[in-house]
Order: sequence, then structure tokens, then C-alpha cells
Amino acid sequence: MRQVYLDYSATTPVRKEVLEEMLPFFSEHFGNPSSAYARGYKTREAIERARHRLAGFLGANHNEIFFTSSGTEANNWALSGVCAMFKEKGNHIITTKIEHPAILNHCNFLESQGYKVTYLDVQADGIVDPKTLEAAITKDTVLISVMFINNEIGTIQPIKELCQIAHKHEILFHTDAVQALGSTPIDVKELDVDLLSMSAHKIYGPKGIGALYIKQGVEIANLMFGGGQESRKRPGTENLTGIVGFGKAAEIAKNNLTAQIAKITELREYFIDKVMSEINEVYLNGHRQFRHPGNANLRFDYIEGESILVLLDMKGISVSTGSACASGESTPSHVLTALNIPIELIHSSLRFTIGAFTTKEDLDYVIDELKIIVEKLRSISSVSAKTLKG
Amino acid sequence: MRQVYLDYSATTPVRKEVLEEMLPFFSEHFGNPSSAYARGYKTREAIERARHRLAGFLGANHNEIFFTSSGTEANNWALSGVCAMFKEKGNHIITTKIEHPAILNHCNFLESQGYKVTYLDVQADGIVDPKTLEAAITKDTVLISVMFINNEIGTIQPIKELCQIAHKHEILFHTDAVQALGSTPIDVKELDVDLLSMSAHKIYGPKGIGALYIKQGVEIANLMFGGGQESRKRPGTENLTGIVGFGKAAEIAKNNLTAQIAKITELREYFIDKVMSEINEVYLNGHRQFRHPGNANLRFDYIEGESILVLLDMKGISVSTGSACASGESTPSHVLTALNIPIELIHSSLRFTIGAFTTKEDLDYVIDELKIIVEKLRSISSVSAKTLKG
Repeated sequence: MRQVYLDYSATTPVRKEVLEEMLPFFSEHFGNPSSAYARGYKTREAIERARHRLAGFLGANHNEIFFTSSGTEANNWALSGVCAMFKEKGNHIITTKIEHPAILNHCNFLESQGYKVTYLDVQADGIVDPKTLEAAITKDTVLISVMFINNEIGTIQPIKELCQIAHKHEILFHTDAVQALGSTPIDVKELDVDLLSMSAHKIYGPKGIGALYIKQGVEIANLMFGGGQESRKRPGTENLTGIVGFGKAAEIAKNNLTAQIAKITELREYFIDKVMSEINEVYLNGHRQFRHPGNANLRFDYIEGESILVLLDMKGISVSTGSACASGESTPSHVLTALNIPIELIHSSLRFTIGAFTTKEDLDYVIDELKIIVEKLRSISSVSAKTLKG
Repeated sequence: MRQVYLDYSATTPVRKEVLEEMLPFFSEHFGNPSSAYARGYKTREAIERARHRLAGFLGANHNEIFFTSSGTEANNWALSGVCAMFKEKGNHIITTKIEHPAILNHCNFLESQGYKVTYLDVQADGIVDPKTLEAAITKDTVLISVMFINNEIGTIQPIKELCQIAHKHEILFHTDAVQALGSTPIDVKELDVDLLSMSAHKIYGPKGIGALYIKQGVEIANLMFGGGQESRKRPGTENLTGIVGFGKAAEIAKNNLTAQIAKITELREYFIDKVMSEINEVYLNGHRQFRHPGNANLRFDYIEGESILVLLDMKGISVSTGSACASGESTPSHVLTALNIPIELIHSSLRFTIGAFTTKEDLDYVIDELKIIVEKLRSISSVSAKTLKG
């Protein structure tokens, strides 16, 4: 049976070239990068090379990149770091209703600590209206955090414009770019963001390593305390192989970015068009154009996305309802809820995400299986299309 | 030239068997463990197997093990988690003067937030006097945190006894066991500790993965917020390969623990005896018996440890002054300072740590080089032994 992975937004396999670059640093060049001898210099050098590579991918300076254990840690650090540093200035944060749980759940925590949080509405296509953002700013606002590309519906936000509004009011701007890195060009100097979160395992690097870009001159408090690693900003013996892998993955992504985006976008358009033309009553969630190249979040009316997922899995096809971070949750997607999609239609949604190793043949196989599954489920559905329309 | 690594307390190479166990999970079985399809079950299963292995090594239940990105994160989580959870009960913490910076610097931060911290003195051999601990307890004490084995001088604390004192006063007890794991038998049920921090890269596992043992029934606040991973206690896509490697390293350590400790202790005793008999005016820092099996922290009077380190490095030998986490610091070791060793003698100290791959031949080579280096340095030392004694 053909195996088709269409959940690249959940995680990606580590590229062969990335693993090869990592391998010598497990057992051969394993010295603690903080050590004052040759074995330590060797690994410190590898970490700095990776930092330069990741910085180069973003148009950042190498001293603006700080490695973390995940995108989640980077997001937590950005939020708590700004709040702790600017607690005299104000206690108001602005974010959106469609952020990742690493932002939303941290904001809930901050609310329990006396902070005020505004969760911006988004438009029906998932995009934040810059006017809504500007209207939410108060004299107490210390941080605006808006996700670059949404993990469920793939919507790309007008980050540069939103950031300009923040800076007009002298407020720091953070973006969770975990889904954006490698999927859209990012130039931190051009965007002018102050803080940007990243993760390696979304760009064919290893799991367990992320990074926070902190613009030079921006000071935020530490999330953790300990040794002097990462310029005293993030303690703990460095995840040497993780960092080396992240650097290599960033370098490869940088060199292939335009071609990769074009190729994946073409596959996505092929997939969306074909599914929507060959299966009735399928709708695309999110914005058609300002969209993650690989994301096809589709609604199959009258049936449960969860049921489609299970039947596709039996055919060797991996897709997702909502995000992996929220899997196992019975509550409806907060992102689709924010789009004002009625609850029964939210449960009809399924996220397909295409990536570097997806082929047209994979997609044809998925579409064929999908047609059979949707027809079968609709025929047994108690609230079938026919009943509703009949 | 022979290469001899004698800095196993800074970090260890990943064992071949550990890396082999990790390899399939980079690019082949790479599914997000939170995903609701077969590829996700496969990796979730691998994580749970690792959790059982680590739990088995400690005599813990698998649901008492929570993976973190490092020992530093585990230490930070334990401290901030207890403080946040029990802030109504009290604002006093007791720790010691010889903890790792992950504890001490976090305590400094907590002091800036209004907490009171007592830093216990230790005896000349580095051991905490249980009476000193009991005398420091106040009605506001919410946590006692004492390092199991010190990373610089290798002193083993009477954890069970200290923990009993804590519990007599209904106070939670945490121990930083990063240096203890794999170097002394640990049975969390017998010790009865509430929280215990660990790290994989000190037991021939990968860097970038640690764990916190939280005794069933003990509730502490989260350090980070996000997805529902690790039973909602520690968010972020799991460091799959790191966790798998940690589990395998724990299994191997468990199966070899007694033999390994005996072998390394014998090598250490051989090394200490030979250095102290063949080189004049060398002293052992810490307790001779209650000591990390591989630790030989030696003082070479009248010369700088840093100079010996550099010259040994030129001979392919890696050793450390103090800990890797404090390398590059010019301030004298806070651990040796706490032993009341005068500052000029602190700078004469050097930490040798023996590990699984050390041989007697390695040690003979180091001793031969050490003799030459010490003689050379003492002969050019402006405050040489002769001058002082002459």
C-alpha cells in the first residue's frame, strides 16, 4: 500500500543531509561547548556556524539568534520576557483569537497574573484587519503578538503592516513564525519585527530545537536561569546536534526557498482544484491566496473530519483535523470558531499539508481514496446531504 | 598523540547503542507523537517506552516522569513550579551555597520577586549538616532543594536524611540529581523525594533532553504553556529522538550500574593515590568517601589550575576548572569558596572526571604529563613552593 504523508505542518522528516551533518556530534565531537579546551572549541564553533546559517536565512545578525528547545519555548520566552521587562510600563498585551496554544495558553496564564489581554477577531478569511489592531492599542500595551502563518488554516498575516502600527505606538512586536519559516520569504530587517519564534522540525530539521530572534537593542527578561550559555540569555548545556541540524536545515531551506514554494504551491492548487471539482460540497477554509504554500484546509459538509482521517489512515494516508498540538481534544478548533464557521461545519474540516517529498501521484492516490471515503460516509450519515437538500 | 577525555561530568559521548536506537526516529518514524494516525502512535509508543525505562531506573512510576529540554529546565521548573503553586502558603526557600547555577541563579531571580532564600553553609568536606538544615526552616518555607551530587567536588549528600527533615515539617523536597543519575543508586520511593531533576547527556545519552520526576500527588505549576504534551505539564512537540536516546541510556545505565560504579571508583582511587604520591603538595577537595565515583577535584598548590588545563589540552587531555557551565568566568568557584578554601588555592584546583571509556593507561599517560607540567609551572611560578617554604 502506498504511504502518503500529508501532515507536514505537524512535523517533517529530518533531511538526509541534515542528519549527516549532525552525526559526528553525537559520539565523536561531543565536547561541552562551554569547555575551555580543544574539544569544547570544536563544538562551540559548530554552534556558531549553525547560528550564522539560521541568521543568514532571516537576514538577521548572528548575535540576534538564541536557540531554545522548541517554538513553544520561544513563544513563552517572548511573552513572559517582555512582560517581566516592561511591567512598570504597562500590563496590556494584544494578540489574536487564532494563535497557537503556546501563545493563547500563556496569555491565559498572564491574565491570572493580573495582565489584560485583547484577543483580536479575524476576518472571515482569517486575516487580521490592521484597523482592528490599531483600535485595540491602549497606553498600557507593551506587546503585540500575531502569528505569521496560521498552523490550521495557513493564512498569512500582513506582518510588516501590523508591525508598523505597533512601532508607531512604540510597542514591541512579536510574531510566531513557526509555520512561516521555510514557507514564505522572511527578512527580519525589512519586516522590522522585534521578536520572532522558530522551530527546526517544521523545516526538515530535528525535533527538540527552536530559536528566538531578538532584534539588537531589544532587551527581554530570561525565561530560565542558570549557566552562561546563549550570551547569558538561555541557560543549559546546548542541544549540540539539534543546533547543528537546525543550521543545516536552514541553509538548505534558504538555497531552495523560491523553487520549493513554487513547487509546493502548484501541488496545493492542483489538489484543492481537483478535490473541489470531483467531490461535491467541499469548501476551502482560510484565504485562497495569502496562504501557506502546502496548506489545504477543506470542509467536507455533512460528515466528520475525524471519520475521514481514520479511514484515510487505514489507506496509509496521514492527515490532520486541526493541529497536532490540539489532537485528542474534543473541543472544536478555536481557529475555525474564530472564522465564525458553525460548529457542525467545523467538525467537517480536515487539514492536508503538502511538503518537500509530496508528489502529484501521492495526491492522485489521496483524491481517489477521498472520493470513495466521502461517498461512503455521506451515504451512511444520518444527516446526509440528500436529507438536507431533499 | 593519545587523546584522553577526563571531563565526563561536563558531558559524555552518546553510546553507540543509544545512537542506534535513536536513528530510525529522525527520518523514518518521524510522526508527531500527538497525531491521531498510525505514524503518530508509533512515535508516541517510543516515547512511552523511554518513559518506562527511565522510570524503571529510578524506581518511579512512568506517570511521574516528565521530559524537559535539560537538567537546567527541570531545576527551573521545580523551583518556579513550587513557588507559584504554594505562594499563599509561604515565600521561603532553603538551598545550599554549592548548588548548580541553574538553582542559584533562579534563586537570585526569586529573591528579586520577593522570595526569601536561605543558602545553607556546607562543612569543610562539602556535606550539608542536617542540623543546619533543620535550623533554617521557618513557617514560610515551601521548598528545600539540595543537590544530590555536587558537580565540582563530587560530594554526595545524605538526601534521604535531609528529605526526612523536610517532610517532618511538611515541606516539599527537591534534589538536582543531574550528576547523581548513573553514578549512584537512586530509588525515589526509598529516598521519598518529591522532585528530582535529571539530564541525559551525563549518562551517555544525547544533549538537549532532561527530565523532572514529580512524585504522584505533588502538584506544581507549569513553567511553560502551550499544547497538551507530557500530560499537559510540559508543552511543545516532544524531542522524540532525544527522549528515545534518554530511555536507552537509562536502560543501559541501570543494567550496568553496580559494575560501572565499582570500575570507575577503582580508577579514581588509583588516580588520586598516584597523583598525590608522585606529585608534592596536591590535595583532594571534597569528601574522600562520599564522592562521585569518577570525580577527582585536586588542588596543586602554588600554580594556576587554568595553566595546567591549557598545557594538558596541548597534550590531548581534556579536564576542567570548576564546571563547564561556569567556564570563561574569572570569579573563583562558588563551591570551593563555600568550603572556605582561600582564593589563591581555589585557583590551584582542577577537576578530573573519569567515565565509562577511561582506561588505566589513559590515567598513566595523564599522570606522566601532569608531573612534567606541574614541575615546569612550579619552577617558573613567582610564588613557588621554594620561596614560600625557603
